[in-house]
Amino acid sequence: MPDQTPEPPDFFAWHRPLLDRAVAATADRGHWTPYPESPSTKVYGEDSPKRGEAAFRDQLGAPFDLPGHPGEGAVEPRETSPYGFALGVTYPRVAPDEAVAAAKAATGRWREAGPDVRAGVAAEMLARLNAASFEIAHAVQHTTGQAFVMAFQAGGPHAQDRGLEAVAYAWAEQKRHPGEARWSKPQRRGGPLVMDKKFTPVGRGVSLLIACNTFPTWNGYPGLFASLVTGNPVVVKPHPGAVLPLAITVRIAREVLAEAGFDPNVVVLAAEEADERTAGVLARHPDVRIIDFTGSTEFGDWLEATARQAVVHTEKAGLNTVVLDSTDDYRGLLGNLAFSLSLYSGQMCTTPQNLLIPREGFTTDQGVRSAAEFAADLGAALDGLLDEPGRAAATLGAIVNGQVLERLDRACALGRTVRASASVEDPEHPEAVIRTPLLALLDAQADRETYSREWFGPVSFVIATDSTAHSLRVFLETVRRHGALTAAVHSTSEAVLAAAEAAALNAGVHLSENLTGGVFVNQSAAFSDFHGSAANPAASATLSDPAFVTGRFATLQSRRPVASEEPAHA
Amino acid sequence: MPDQTPEPPDFFAWHRPLLDRAVAATADRGHWTPYPESPSTKVYGEDSPKRGEAAFRDQLGAPFDLPGHPGEGAVEPRETSPYGFALGVTYPRVAPDEAVAAAKAATGRWREAGPDVRAGVAAEMLARLNAASFEIAHAVQHTTGQAFVMAFQAGGPHAQDRGLEAVAYAWAEQKRHPGEARWSKPQRRGGPLVMDKKFTPVGRGVSLLIACNTFPTWNGYPGLFASLVTGNPVVVKPHPGAVLPLAITVRIAREVLAEAGFDPNVVVLAAEEADERTAGVLARHPDVRIIDFTGSTEFGDWLEATARQAVVHTEKAGLNTVVLDSTDDYRGLLGNLAFSLSLYSGQMCTTPQNLLIPREGFTTDQGVRSAAEFAADLGAALDGLLDEPGRAAATLGAIVNGQVLERLDRACALGRTVRASASVEDPEHPEAVIRTPLLALLDAQADRETYSREWFGPVSFVIATDSTAHSLRVFLETVRRHGALTAAVHSTSEAVLAAAEAAALNAGVHLSENLTGGVFVNQSAAFSDFHGSAANPAASATLSDPAFVTGRFATLQSRRPVASEEPAHA
Repeated sequence: MPDQTPEPPDFFAWHRPLLDRAVAATADRGHWTPYPESPSTKVYGEDSPKRGEAAFRDQLGAPFDLPGHPGEGAVEPRETSPYGFALGVTYPRVAPDEAVAAAKAATGRWREAGPDVRAGVAAEMLARLNAASFEIAHAVQHTTGQAFVMAFQAGGPHAQDRGLEAVAYAWAEQKRHPGEARWSKPQRRGGPLVMDKKFTPVGRGVSLLIACNTFPTWNGYPGLFASLVTGNPVVVKPHPGAVLPLAITVRIAREVLAEAGFDPNVVVLAAEEADERTAGVLARHPDVRIIDFTGSTEFGDWLEATARQAVVHTEKAGLNTVVLDSTDDYRGLLGNLAFSLSLYSGQMCTTPQNLLIPREGFTTDQGVRSAAEFAADLGAALDGLLDEPGRAAATLGAIVNGQVLERLDRACALGRTVRASASVEDPEHPEAVIRTPLLALLDAQADRETYSREWFGPVSFVIATDSTAHSLRVFLETVRRHGALTAAVHSTSEAVLAAAEAAALNAGVHLSENLTGGVFVNQSAAFSDFHGSAANPAASATLSDPAFVTGRFATLQSRRPVASEEPAHA
Repeated sequence: MPDQTPEPPDFFAWHRPLLDRAVAATADRGHWTPYPESPSTKVYGEDSPKRGEAAFRDQLGAPFDLPGHPGEGAVEPRETSPYGFALGVTYPRVAPDEAVAAAKAATGRWREAGPDVRAGVAAEMLARLNAASFEIAHAVQHTTGQAFVMAFQAGGPHAQDRGLEAVAYAWAEQKRHPGEARWSKPQRRGGPLVMDKKFTPVGRGVSLLIACNTFPTWNGYPGLFASLVTGNPVVVKPHPGAVLPLAITVRIAREVLAEAGFDPNVVVLAAEEADERTAGVLARHPDVRIIDFTGSTEFGDWLEATARQAVVHTEKAGLNTVVLDSTDDYRGLLGNLAFSLSLYSGQMCTTPQNLLIPREGFTTDQGVRSAAEFAADLGAALDGLLDEPGRAAATLGAIVNGQVLERLDRACALGRTVRASASVEDPEHPEAVIRTPLLALLDAQADRETYSREWFGPVSFVIATDSTAHSLRVFLETVRRHGALTAAVHSTSEAVLAAAEAAALNAGVHLSENLTGGVFVNQSAAFSDFHGSAANPAASATLSDPAFVTGRFATLQSRRPVASEEPAHA
């Protein structure tokens, strides 16, 4: 052991070029990522896959170690892999009050460190999370049910992208105003009035992350990193079904904090068991001043109405909609849409649910296809995509929990099924619960109540309308009222595309047009695509934009007079 | 009349240099203003004072004309000048639903115009408001009771500064992201995936301005202009006691809108009579999506809790505090503080109320002065400042309404008065109700309940504490709990100043240090000083910063694939 405490590393100097590049990327919105999305040994090193898997396996059935973490005893959330085994990991038990108090007590030095130091520490956390991508991928796969490659990409590099994007916005936004300024106001008589002013960004207080079961890291990192970089400690409250990916995240965050000379309790894990319902208790704690939530509309609405002491960012549910007017690539359309519906069994907040098409049909390069014909064609495209069990399993992943299966049963009971959901056997994971998408044919008028609710999971509706104009009206009305995270349109007419863009602006949703190739409506690219718009009921936040960070801190000012003989600052 | 509709003027091209300079000023935070604060004929022209007064006089007793304004009939708010006469102006009567509907119906073209055009129109409004500064000054004087020079400065150029500052933030914030971008993601096999993306800032919806009696324009312009420039129509709901200054503002705004080719109902006046209480009705209207409010804590809290459909910005009440530790310019301190307490009879949201001083006294260049001695000295300084009626009237202005007088009576009834409030006769306005500040001596321990409430008006407390450390504790606790818009400290010790700065950061309030000259704690300079911090209960907004504008719009996106053979955008 060395005699002296070593100087903490200067993470900011180290990561400054990355941070500058990230800020530039938020402004130019082209393609950019520092975290390669390919789970390849060429990128991540020969041993990485093996070491990542071993780290995951070693953790199973064991207590998760977080040195110096507050709390006493253990919680056993009984995480179960949708691929058919119990994780058996236990986590430190920390009461809500204790978690908030520990985080609050860690605030001081973190606040004083300033935006540069905090951004550097955050970038180092992300670098180490990137290095741990294989371990995190296994943790994500076996809590969410995502197939491995998706778990790697969405849970690893893509989540890290979204984290870095939040770091970039948070860092830049705090530097909009100078740290110091001299104000000199000429007077009609005598010398000017001169004041020296200081401007200090100060975080709002303890931040609470309430994470979801399906994308614990991707949906969690933006709020986590935005709050950290703006000077707030964060209490991480994972979904009881998906604790491990965030526990690994918290472990890495705390390691970096400690190395950088900060109290590791700047990030605290508040794991809970399935029925403890600590989120509501934490959310009402008077010292919790920021909340980031991904999950159900019901709890999101409750948070917005109840946690009045906090700035609340929510991502809830919505009615993701596709308007089908015409296409010159019917085959591409069907293939693209079939993949969008199948990816992770439709368990994405961005999966299309309502497919609006004129009853009499839409024009394609293969002739006019009626709503019923289109539904049949899409069903066939799904069959084609999913006919080989290995590929089907790699696309569908597994069903995250029993609620999705219940919803699937209810959709089946509607009696409008065009393509039934079926079980798929994953050759590698015989215990996995895997289902293909169900497609039902509805009527825009008669079935409004049915399709105006979110059916999270592998359930989509082909909805017959009177015309494209009617489709656009239904799109506008339902999304304005119930929200949506994504929308898409297919048309060969510039006029219809313009009308769809206008409707999307009115509905407050982002729009994808004529996707027939390798880009899918349920995917959004960090630094280029906004996720969520904060302009419809599905989400009060984007991940990320300036509005996502400005409410997390205040710029406080002090000023003092300068004696006129004193020279100006260098 | 010309045969053809003339092209609308290009206000953006015209004002672009001003807008660029304003954006730069928000970032460098030195002294800057384009609107001269001196009510001088050299600046504003030989005829301006006369024409402004004539415009005001001509309006008295007459209906206020707003061509094309919605509504039917008239409201008579019975505005009464604190200088002793009835204004007798009537305004269009427009029901809350009708006002919101008219504003909403005007949204379309205003939204489509984009940030540049809107910023240009807003800058032109401000240029014409500046030209109308004398008319507005009389309207402000005779609704708020501010003395003429203050009414001119705070109601005219300084309010215009704050308006332009909001324009600058709103304009810049909408241009953080490009209007268009091309995204090109390399693929392992084949050409890249290429998408063209459009980014469009879209306003949240109808904005409601609920203005106050004392600073209708200064506190009103930031929200008005921030909402306009971010693409939102604004319903202006003035305090029934101070309609005229905002009616003039609305008239000018509508003139510019019409000239620029927009529906003038982008700005609507919703005047009301004294007991109509339309603010609450307007605030709960589902189409009202943004609210800016200045006024009582009670109504502000109600708005924040109730108007859940809107982004709510409030400026409420607080406990403005001065910590007295030591000074090397006792005379300067007393003179500066006496002026701060006297300016507009303490009817500023920034006037110091609680003066914390060690019971045994603080060190000055004139020896140690106990709390009681300091109170007596400050009383004498007030006497000296206000002994000449003309100067007293020019400093104090008049009492805005009966509630302030009632509060003064209650303060007197505390029985702790050190310096009594007195009537002053304004030689020019014998009917004016004018009062000098009351100073009472309290104890930090025993009188906590008394000084933990806001006593809006000419009431301040010298509060005896055990020590400066105790003063800082009381400062921190009371401001954190009850809020404050200003705080000040006097000390010759850098350690104490540092401790005061730390306490102010913890309390979430801006701090002024050692003001003994021509800068006063109740004044904040646009483009340099933030007004309000959004970090304590007194205000959820600053006027202005990025957080003040980011919630008023969303950036919506559309994207479409680019065929690989298509050349890149020029």
